[in-house]
Amino acid sequence: MKNKRIPEITISRLSLYNRLLQDLQEKGVDSVTSTELGKKMGLKASQVRRDLTYFGRFGSPRVGYEVKQLLETLKGILGLHKKWPVALVGCGNLGKAFLSYPGFKQHGFEISIVFDNDPAKIGKVWKGKKIFDPAKMAKIIKEKGIKIAIIAVPYFAAQEVCDKLVRSDVKAILNFVPCKLFVPKEEGVKIRNIDIAIELEGLSAYLVR
Amino acid sequence: MKNKRIPEITISRLSLYNRLLQDLQEKGVDSVTSTELGKKMGLKASQVRRDLTYFGRFGSPRVGYEVKQLLETLKGILGLHKKWPVALVGCGNLGKAFLSYPGFKQHGFEISIVFDNDPAKIGKVWKGKKIFDPAKMAKIIKEKGIKIAIIAVPYFAAQEVCDKLVRSDVKAILNFVPCKLFVPKEEGVKIRNIDIAIELEGLSAYLVR
Repeated sequence: MKNKRIPEITISRLSLYNRLLQDLQEKGVDSVTSTELGKKMGLKASQVRRDLTYFGRFGSPRVGYEVKQLLETLKGILGLHKKWPVALVGCGNLGKAFLSYPGFKQHGFEISIVFDNDPAKIGKVWKGKKIFDPAKMAKIIKEKGIKIAIIAVPYFAAQEVCDKLVRSDVKAILNFVPCKLFVPKEEGVKIRNIDIAIELEGLSAYLVR
Repeated sequence: MKNKRIPEITISRLSLYNRLLQDLQEKGVDSVTSTELGKKMGLKASQVRRDLTYFGRFGSPRVGYEVKQLLETLKGILGLHKKWPVALVGCGNLGKAFLSYPGFKQHGFEISIVFDNDPAKIGKVWKGKKIFDPAKMAKIIKEKGIKIAIIAVPYFAAQEVCDKLVRSDVKAILNFVPCKLFVPKEEGVKIRNIDIAIELEGLSAYLVR
């Protein structure tokens, strides 16, 4: 299914719908209305219907949405029908937190390779994962066909790591380093930045209102 | 300044404008046009102008925006004229990563108190911060007048920590635990959730398009 024009904000809500619908399925609920979904999401029912019609009509006016059918479609859109191996670069505290995070596997992602340039870490095993030398990045990532990477290195090393990942044919990067990464447009690499200070500013802006 | 109706998405962009303008000021640049700002942000000039007119008109058609003036106004809107003390709950790998993060102080935030319920950690010092028993949370946070907290505890403990923070008069929470936290509406507490798996789903959705 082609969905190039779906807004990012809708995509991120789809993940939440997916989470909610999984809960409902586990509880044995067969169908759900847009009003019920909206209540759980803090959205108007009309917004829910608009979000979900991006992907064809699934709901019927009285009964609502079939949980199982909607879930299957959402999983397809979110690319969750397959398992995604993920490369983690940087095995400091943040990297280690990711390796301890139980949510990845549950949602179809698995950190399958870890890199760190600290000679004291290379070759060691952390949470069952061996830590590799970044010099071998392109070879290993290409061999494993990995397309998603997480960058959790210090500020000054982030762009160099990003360049290496692009040369390794990675196509999607989750960046936890508070800096803008540059990738030539023609590489078609998607970058999502998580900047903790910016999240905090969103909160302080709320507090001064 | 009241800005209740400013969309969240604009608020988060304001943080990025703020970052850019700081860079420009450090480079000695006095004024900047919406076109220049747009280029750096990957936005149309018209979007930049729309974002910034939420807060009154600052730009003139030829010269553009005065960097210093715009920066001052943005800092006010983002609540960055004051320093914000932040409480961190959870001093595992993720919490430790926050304590090592240089970006907070630079942007007006400081983790000024740390809690962890691990008896082996209570009383110890990490990166210059003493770790306190969560049983003392309400007392300490109220005394210090802290309004912002970061939750970085295991899944099963998150709601209990959240309840304790609300009882401690915290009004803004950055939640790194992949679960929905419930706070009675009348408490007026703002919660921002960062769910790494959801961020990854945004990337896998991109890869399957």
